[in-house]
Amino acid sequence: MTITITAFERSPDGGKGLARDTRVRWALEEVGQPYEVRLVSFRALKEPAHLALHPFGQIPTYEEGELALFETGAIVFHLAQRYPGLLPEDANARARAITWMFAALNTIEPPILELVTARIFEADKPWAKDRMPLVVERVRARLKQLSDRLGTADWLDGAFSAGDLMMVSVLLRLRPSGILDEFPSLAAYVARGEARPAYKRAFEAQLAVNG
Amino acid sequence: MTITITAFERSPDGGKGLARDTRVRWALEEVGQPYEVRLVSFRALKEPAHLALHPFGQIPTYEEGELALFETGAIVFHLAQRYPGLLPEDANARARAITWMFAALNTIEPPILELVTARIFEADKPWAKDRMPLVVERVRARLKQLSDRLGTADWLDGAFSAGDLMMVSVLLRLRPSGILDEFPSLAAYVARGEARPAYKRAFEAQLAVNG
Repeated sequence: MTITITAFERSPDGGKGLARDTRVRWALEEVGQPYEVRLVSFRALKEPAHLALHPFGQIPTYEEGELALFETGAIVFHLAQRYPGLLPEDANARARAITWMFAALNTIEPPILELVTARIFEADKPWAKDRMPLVVERVRARLKQLSDRLGTADWLDGAFSAGDLMMVSVLLRLRPSGILDEFPSLAAYVARGEARPAYKRAFEAQLAVNG
Repeated sequence: MTITITAFERSPDGGKGLARDTRVRWALEEVGQPYEVRLVSFRALKEPAHLALHPFGQIPTYEEGELALFETGAIVFHLAQRYPGLLPEDANARARAITWMFAALNTIEPPILELVTARIFEADKPWAKDRMPLVVERVRARLKQLSDRLGTADWLDGAFSAGDLMMVSVLLRLRPSGILDEFPSLAAYVARGEARPAYKRAFEAQLAVNG
């Protein structure tokens, strides 16, 4: 059955790979599954046809026969569950890899999103400058803990997994801020993710649309 | 094997059930598994013994024989995967229920957390009053979309699932703000969750510690 995902017709990041379709493309490349892409305009995101697929009017979505999914974490998990390559076989190791997926999305990404919001959508507000140190400090606190846990390991728990795919993707959103480079082991961790052939193919594929 | 979770020795919410151990207690009650609780003080959260279990120094954690997990979403998912009662048998329905878990944690909870942060941790800041409408509006936008999708259904996709458990738990954090009541169908959805015998047992169990 053909796998079809959606992506922005024109990504707001101009091809830096930060739109969430890159995460799904990366997972598809890691598990070696071909896929098609349907590009969606900003206007179409809020129209009934797309809202039927994605109640929050975002990309990416995932269609495969009768199955329609939204939410990047769920799509990557579905692929990881279905095809070998993104989750360990051992049940306990598998549960721990899934833990890192949730940690990336629910513990690390929220303060990073707050920073992105502060830098972009509240940049012109009167409080922007005074509030920024608070927002940055919340990100730093989480990165410090993550860096402590990673230590000198290559990946968060044994071999590369869907947990690393998600964590690297979330951390990539920080690069424009410069904060990632304050934590050299995390910057190296992200670079290891970007060096994977599957990531490179995913990045090139989104760049072909947005570059 | 005995299941042991951690919870606050004294929850900051004084027993309203908003600390995240309630989500795990609820899942354990839904699948009918007994569990033990180890209470942790605020100081102990940041000590090496607890950080070894939870790199971000939070509760809850989950221990069962050799397996140690953190991150509420991962723990609830582990239970839902392992015991019947929280995920449908059909593979596609199961993938959709998991989608709602991720949507609760990565799409609905982040703006709610921002609101909690604004109301509690930035309440004394000079920008608090002027910024609040923006923060509230972000929450409303998501609730409107969620309410549209729920429509007149009892649960998000067929029978009650781990996706509903997580969504109801996330929405409960909004109750003190009054915003939930602006969306009567969501308020009723949350009330349906709270009316479940398993939720009531979980709530009572945390209240016995914090009340």
